[in-house]
Amino acid sequence: MNDVLVRDVTLRDGLQLVSTLLPTADKVDLVRFLLSCGLPTLEIGAVVRRVPTMADTVDVVAALDSSELDRCWVLVPNVTGARLAVEAGVRQIQYVLSVSPSHNKANVGCDVEQSLDGLAAAVVLGSKHGVRVQLALATAFTCPFEGATPEDAVLAVVSDARTAGVDSVVLCDTIGQAVPADVTSLTAAVCAVADEVWFHGHDTWGLGVANTFAAIDAGAVAVDASLGGLGGCPFAPGASGNTALEDVVYALRPSWLSQDGFRQLVARGRDLVVQLGEPSRSRAAEGAARSPGTHPWALG
Amino acid sequence: MNDVLVRDVTLRDGLQLVSTLLPTADKVDLVRFLLSCGLPTLEIGAVVRRVPTMADTVDVVAALDSSELDRCWVLVPNVTGARLAVEAGVRQIQYVLSVSPSHNKANVGCDVEQSLDGLAAAVVLGSKHGVRVQLALATAFTCPFEGATPEDAVLAVVSDARTAGVDSVVLCDTIGQAVPADVTSLTAAVCAVADEVWFHGHDTWGLGVANTFAAIDAGAVAVDASLGGLGGCPFAPGASGNTALEDVVYALRPSWLSQDGFRQLVARGRDLVVQLGEPSRSRAAEGAARSPGTHPWALG
Repeated sequence: MNDVLVRDVTLRDGLQLVSTLLPTADKVDLVRFLLSCGLPTLEIGAVVRRVPTMADTVDVVAALDSSELDRCWVLVPNVTGARLAVEAGVRQIQYVLSVSPSHNKANVGCDVEQSLDGLAAAVVLGSKHGVRVQLALATAFTCPFEGATPEDAVLAVVSDARTAGVDSVVLCDTIGQAVPADVTSLTAAVCAVADEVWFHGHDTWGLGVANTFAAIDAGAVAVDASLGGLGGCPFAPGASGNTALEDVVYALRPSWLSQDGFRQLVARGRDLVVQLGEPSRSRAAEGAARSPGTHPWALG
Repeated sequence: MNDVLVRDVTLRDGLQLVSTLLPTADKVDLVRFLLSCGLPTLEIGAVVRRVPTMADTVDVVAALDSSELDRCWVLVPNVTGARLAVEAGVRQIQYVLSVSPSHNKANVGCDVEQSLDGLAAAVVLGSKHGVRVQLALATAFTCPFEGATPEDAVLAVVSDARTAGVDSVVLCDTIGQAVPADVTSLTAAVCAVADEVWFHGHDTWGLGVANTFAAIDAGAVAVDASLGGLGGCPFAPGASGNTALEDVVYALRPSWLSQDGFRQLVARGRDLVVQLGEPSRSRAAEGAARSPGTHPWALG
């Protein structure tokens, strides 16, 4: 349980909607800081058009060395993005599509079938270049436009993705409305047909950590989180941030994170939200700030 | 899972530290509102000295009829409190002691052994009057003065309580520093030796809901929560509120709560924190306010 993979997505989902541009050098510095804390893996940006905070993703990639890139992911919405990412030197690609047709149209501008065709092409491209391609399923639980997503729709997309050669699927609770029972059920169902399942939660309704644990209990091998609970989606009205990284690691106490590393993560998250002019949505960071310091993981 | 007992503790732990006195008539009205929403059970106050917000607890009890009182609990810190509660007509008493000696001294003013003697006397008194006595174990996980509470210390107190005739034990994460693995372990251990285990969580570090689910998974039959995440403890520095009732019922979707009932709970919680001048700590209430309304449980 406490050695489940934790992926920090601060530099991708975390920055997606903020209005302050984080300078490229600061992004690179944050990647190195997070890796030095022991974070097993990171998502560091997206190769997309029209998202200003993601515009320098290839520059961030260019600044990293190969051992750093081996621990990093970049999100792409189509095969064009995948091609640009591969050319930039990305080693792990997260290809995103939404199970719900209307959200897919709004988010990536095409039908789900077109997205699946692009995924198949991206997998072929990836295998040629030794680049791993993972599928992120947005609106896997609920859609802001269509309501509850049928489990069968998720399984159908996963089946097509498997046929295309995808072995890793991320179930995204895009608007944070899933409850633990939903997460348990869908994670178990997808675990039965995919090689590995990841979980990407939002804390909009306060269930980010509870849903993360439900996913892990049901077989997810990895979970996403972001510093300060930063994050959002332009086509997911009502969604607030990702599950806070500080809350997830406080809850999981992963073996790679020392008490000092936790202290550093909390401080860095606090600095980052201040720099971005965003609220901190991490309650563990708040708890750490208030704590009397008697607990082994408290800040003293 | 979704029919675990949920106890609202707004009128006890929720009001314990607030500086605004809620008028007695408003308390009685809140009891009736919560019962009408379907809340199975409530804690409506404490018979204690020196907590101004609890001073009218016997007046609240006096205003309720017997079918209402059958669903209510009152907290007491000693046998004197138990006697006063019984005389007032209380049907269910929660007797609190802290596993950690220094917290017990600070909170209820005596040694743990003296508290246990009082518990035994309270059980005898209760059985004479057909009043149920439950034991609440404060600092069951961590203590603000002593750090981590040894599981053996909890089990020793539970064993003494069982000898005294107590069949129901509440494990209180008084300062909200427990993580799900701690809750799973202690709940399972106490379930093995007690007839029933309840869980009382705080959301100080953002783990209120995750810990609540860990407790339920490990065998807890009931969980505490408060409107707006109100709550605190004068001798638990650093602790913020209880797990928010809105978050817990959003996560559990109990069969007794309709979508309209959820909407009413959220609105009432919002009004209450405004009346008390307290922050709302319920993220489900925030999510409900922001929601686009497509989800069956969203507010529209």
